[in-house]
Amino acid sequence: MRAIVFEDYKTFPTLKEIDRPTPGPGEVLLKVAGAGACHSDVAIYDVFEADTPGRVPPSFVLGHENSGWVEELGPGVEGFEKGDAHLVYGPVGCGRCKACSRGQDTYCENQATNPYMGIGLGRDGGMAEYVSVPARNLVPLGDADPMAAAPLSDAGLTPYHAIKLALPQLAGGGKTALVIGLGGLGQIGVQILRALTGATIIATDMKPEAMAQAEKYGAVTVPGGDDQVDRIRELTGGRGVDAVFDFVGAAPTIGVAMASVAVQGRVTIVGIDGGAHPWSFFTAPNEAELTSTYWGTIEDLHEVVAMYRAGQIVPEVERFSLDDGLEAYRRLQAGELSARAVVVPHSS
Amino acid sequence: MRAIVFEDYKTFPTLKEIDRPTPGPGEVLLKVAGAGACHSDVAIYDVFEADTPGRVPPSFVLGHENSGWVEELGPGVEGFEKGDAHLVYGPVGCGRCKACSRGQDTYCENQATNPYMGIGLGRDGGMAEYVSVPARNLVPLGDADPMAAAPLSDAGLTPYHAIKLALPQLAGGGKTALVIGLGGLGQIGVQILRALTGATIIATDMKPEAMAQAEKYGAVTVPGGDDQVDRIRELTGGRGVDAVFDFVGAAPTIGVAMASVAVQGRVTIVGIDGGAHPWSFFTAPNEAELTSTYWGTIEDLHEVVAMYRAGQIVPEVERFSLDDGLEAYRRLQAGELSARAVVVPHSS
Amino acid sequence: MRAIVFEDYKTFPTLKEIDRPTPGPGEVLLKVAGAGACHSDVAIYDVFEADTPGRVPPSFVLGHENSGWVEELGPGVEGFEKGDAHLVYGPVGCGRCKACSRGQDTYCENQATNPYMGIGLGRDGGMAEYVSVPARNLVPLGDADPMAAAPLSDAGLTPYHAIKLALPQLAGGGKTALVIGLGGLGQIGVQILRALTGATIIATDMKPEAMAQAEKYGAVTVPGGDDQVDRIRELTGGRGVDAVFDFVGAAPTIGVAMASVAVQGRVTIVGIDGGAHPWSFFTAPNEAELTSTYWGTIEDLHEVVAMYRAGQIVPEVERFSLDDGLEAYRRLQAGELSARAVVVPHSS
Amino acid sequence: MRAIVFEDYKTFPTLKEIDRPTPGPGEVLLKVAGAGACHSDVAIYDVFEADTPGRVPPSFVLGHENSGWVEELGPGVEGFEKGDAHLVYGPVGCGRCKACSRGQDTYCENQATNPYMGIGLGRDGGMAEYVSVPARNLVPLGDADPMAAAPLSDAGLTPYHAIKLALPQLAGGGKTALVIGLGGLGQIGVQILRALTGATIIATDMKPEAMAQAEKYGAVTVPGGDDQVDRIRELTGGRGVDAVFDFVGAAPTIGVAMASVAVQGRVTIVGIDGGAHPWSFFTAPNEAELTSTYWGTIEDLHEVVAMYRAGQIVPEVERFSLDDGLEAYRRLQAGELSARAVVVPHSS
Repeated sequence: MRAIVFEDYKTFPTLKEIDRPTPGPGEVLLKVAGAGACHSDVAIYDVFEADTPGRVPPSFVLGHENSGWVEELGPGVEGFEKGDAHLVYGPVGCGRCKACSRGQDTYCENQATNPYMGIGLGRDGGMAEYVSVPARNLVPLGDADPMAAAPLSDAGLTPYHAIKLALPQLAGGGKTALVIGLGGLGQIGVQILRALTGATIIATDMKPEAMAQAEKYGAVTVPGGDDQVDRIRELTGGRGVDAVFDFVGAAPTIGVAMASVAVQGRVTIVGIDGGAHPWSFFTAPNEAELTSTYWGTIEDLHEVVAMYRAGQIVPEVERFSLDDGLEAYRRLQAGELSARAVVVPHSS
Repeated sequence: MRAIVFEDYKTFPTLKEIDRPTPGPGEVLLKVAGAGACHSDVAIYDVFEADTPGRVPPSFVLGHENSGWVEELGPGVEGFEKGDAHLVYGPVGCGRCKACSRGQDTYCENQATNPYMGIGLGRDGGMAEYVSVPARNLVPLGDADPMAAAPLSDAGLTPYHAIKLALPQLAGGGKTALVIGLGGLGQIGVQILRALTGATIIATDMKPEAMAQAEKYGAVTVPGGDDQVDRIRELTGGRGVDAVFDFVGAAPTIGVAMASVAVQGRVTIVGIDGGAHPWSFFTAPNEAELTSTYWGTIEDLHEVVAMYRAGQIVPEVERFSLDDGLEAYRRLQAGELSARAVVVPHSS
Repeated sequence: MRAIVFEDYKTFPTLKEIDRPTPGPGEVLLKVAGAGACHSDVAIYDVFEADTPGRVPPSFVLGHENSGWVEELGPGVEGFEKGDAHLVYGPVGCGRCKACSRGQDTYCENQATNPYMGIGLGRDGGMAEYVSVPARNLVPLGDADPMAAAPLSDAGLTPYHAIKLALPQLAGGGKTALVIGLGGLGQIGVQILRALTGATIIATDMKPEAMAQAEKYGAVTVPGGDDQVDRIRELTGGRGVDAVFDFVGAAPTIGVAMASVAVQGRVTIVGIDGGAHPWSFFTAPNEAELTSTYWGTIEDLHEVVAMYRAGQIVPEVERFSLDDGLEAYRRLQAGELSARAVVVPHSS
Repeated sequence: MRAIVFEDYKTFPTLKEIDRPTPGPGEVLLKVAGAGACHSDVAIYDVFEADTPGRVPPSFVLGHENSGWVEELGPGVEGFEKGDAHLVYGPVGCGRCKACSRGQDTYCENQATNPYMGIGLGRDGGMAEYVSVPARNLVPLGDADPMAAAPLSDAGLTPYHAIKLALPQLAGGGKTALVIGLGGLGQIGVQILRALTGATIIATDMKPEAMAQAEKYGAVTVPGGDDQVDRIRELTGGRGVDAVFDFVGAAPTIGVAMASVAVQGRVTIVGIDGGAHPWSFFTAPNEAELTSTYWGTIEDLHEVVAMYRAGQIVPEVERFSLDDGLEAYRRLQAGELSARAVVVPHSS
């Protein structure tokens, strides 16, 4: 079968012919419906080097945002029907620690000795005609479109998990949320906040068209500028924002987040720009929490799928054939995409 | 001034002239904007007798759902502007116990020795031109209409408090809520669920027009009948409902609630019909909680006002002059009202 | 190998020779360290009939409270060392639904179509020299005694899960808890409450020696009798108990629980006596929750093991050889045991 | 009556004769039992200047940690018995905002326009024979010693509030807590953690005798040094600490806190040293929360008193007469006190 393979550090991936995988014990072979191309993939093949912390060593098939139809069951697997569509939870932990027991492989206690981080992250992913995945990583899609769903396993799950942990701060009437950074994850974040809370949603981005899009999803927008924090606070009656989600994570955006948050509010840094913020007792509002987030749990992914099936999340995607998959990565890397690229290996 | 006074048990109230109150220490005199007529009032004057548990002894001015404009400040009160509109929190506890310290006078630890339960509940209420209330019971309404707001202090606060305590069960995607009984509180309950959660809202009532109204607020309706529970469960994918709110509280409605709720769900009985339900380990779904609720906290009322000001709660009211106030009670008692009656003592 | 087999309804089990199991895909073969004899086993072989709801059809090896040493790994299993001791989580769900994804197989959404409920519950259990279990069901015991640990997988996990869900009601100073029924689970419940909360623990049982034991673990005891509820309420300053755990579940004990609980408290029925309680709005304290519980999660079991290893839970056990295993069941059924019977198949 | 008065910035307080206060509407006059001398007082009279942010302008009687016996009731106050002992909640907000409605005057929404921050903080405090306080600020002490209790209104309430907000992270078995800084608040923090959680408590301080004291309360201690974080992590099995409480708040202690905390843990900075910590996505453990805390709520203070009355908190105090009150401040400022100084104006 054909697959897009990451073969070496600092090297653009290759579309090549490889053997179709055989599902091992506890695994399911999927015929791939869609595979999302993610910025992390670009970091994997273009940024990381052999000694970069967090690198994912080659070679393997890319693609950690996957959906597909059940094709074949490995030994010991039951309860799946051939042809049924599923979304794939990407992280793969040890499966036996406390974190994995609750379906939170992202915080597996044995990461240091695990052979890989996940599907398309050290282990062969979904940028191929077929992919084999652990049965427990599958979430049924029912009759919903599996192609558009593919990116939800990361671009939907990550904001969902961040927002779910902040729901206590947003519970009840008169609350406000702030979304900083309106790329793919930020836009889905606005949709999730709109569906799950009664909060006034304030959104900001450097691109006017991104803010226009967020307004369509129900957000009030505030552009950057010297008075940005003042304008945000004004929208909250001076009190500050109950929950901030920063999808950038640069020093200036964290600064805006911490200057905008209310006493007892919560700031979640989702974006991995890696900026440093000088936290101190006297500049942070009392009891405001500064925290980060990373992907989500299998249970969360069930709930993301429920929202997708209910029309509460509508991902914006651009479809590419597998033959055009490398072009998708080229355009992603060049910043030429305005929607999430999904590689669709099989014509319907 | 004129006021509607409850003068004796089993006796219809009287519209009469009484002295305008003088605000005591810590109190504020309000010029009444609106006073809601509540079914509890009918119980007070028509059902209870001198030896009924829970009775509220005469005589006093009725009206525990009140709004008004600041007219005069009692000794020791600061920070209010004459003419500013406020909604009034009705319960009045001892003010010094743990429950009162958190603004939950409903569960005052000194109820047994308190002189009254609240404003219009043993102490003079808002069915009058003026009413004096503790300053801490006031929630500012800003520029929102105070007349329509009056019933929110009970008919809004009660479902709000019930729903807020069930938000953990409704947090996230793919959840369902069931509202049983679509009178005034139930309809506001549907609106609050719609605004604050992403849950599918199922609603039921014996009156088709009440169900039609709930559908306008976004609910899916299921009429009564032998297959009612089956149809409700079908709407939840067989799993059952995550949070049920029973605004009736009769034995059959509690039965429907407990038969519809999911494992780990929550059933809140709001209605005071007083029906008994034979709870047992083997008939109740595992970990499902059966509980009741009673009114709410001052903090809750701030949040109800925020929702009202944001247009997320739209109470349906019918206005009566003070002269027509007794007629409002007559029609309430006769079941001839389709909206909440609000007595408006001053023509604007 | 020898094993204690449930062969037919209403039939005492048999000690017989059967084939040693081979671990399937995703499974681990354990050399059994200890297997607890549980009252549910007696129900399985002595009470249930072919048409009893909840029955577990024969034949299979009994024993759902198991510990053992890793002997052999099935296909696809990694990360275990031969000889390492583990406690076994008993429930086995479909492994692919939302509940199983969070390690809560007890509430598996596919129970109706699962081939069995768990290890020793439809599938061969630990009353044998060896048992094969899913790898994800194992919780490492480190250097703690695996024999005494065996009953913790049920008699420890069940009260732990019930108490963990009630920790919000018990959080902070000045709280009280009530434990009704001081058999094996109740005594461990007292120990867990003692370790994890600052609550005053009130305990009651019909047997004076059981109450004496609970006093050793730090409880205040109140015997039965007409003034029982009054005495319990007096110990709470009149307020009532914040969290009640009823390990009996008979109508009278649920009645004591509901009469003792505070406004906003929680009553958890753990015991499966199946008594019915006539819940009503006017007899239940406001906002008090009445709920049940069933076993626990894999994550909970990790935490139970942590408490056991820290000396916070000390199970009382009586050891039997496999040859004496049927005698253990006989004495259990006859009510002649004062501690949990653990069958130890291998002499050390 | 005699009182210790803060008369001007940068000026040591004066013991002088002033008029005994008259309780205003809603107030209670207390005969002072004890008044704790707090480091904040030293900041008020010795550090702040007329233009320092956070200053408290003179002149007023010092003392914000107070207890006393009811002497006289102001207009509108009922329900108190002369001679009954109470602890005093120090903060005084507007009394009408949402935060004050839940008894959290510390986060009063009208702080900018309030005339003072609290009792002994802009308004006359308890370093005097009598003090007048709002009735709602009183928490009954029953028959417990009111002198030793005085400091609990700050030195007990502050760690209690911080720990209560972290109880979700500490709920269950196998948890760990870290206390940094073992002065008065830190030692009470260790006692509260010991009583309310089952966590392993790790404690650190630069003074060996402070660590020895913490060990008496059940803590495991780790001294400073290059391997401090490694040793702390080792005590947690490598996982990191679930909840850290930093009672210093200097840059190095926040650094130790953030290096020691587990994924999904919580770091609460209690100490006001004001150090800055360079937070970033890649150095902070995933989902770990960094937050601060400030004093507590009236409800919290009820729970602190419950713990004190149950013997779960034992404050260490050194008593001074009112005549020796200035000497107490001198020794506090000079660092010569090893226990909390409590000024006791009346000989018993």
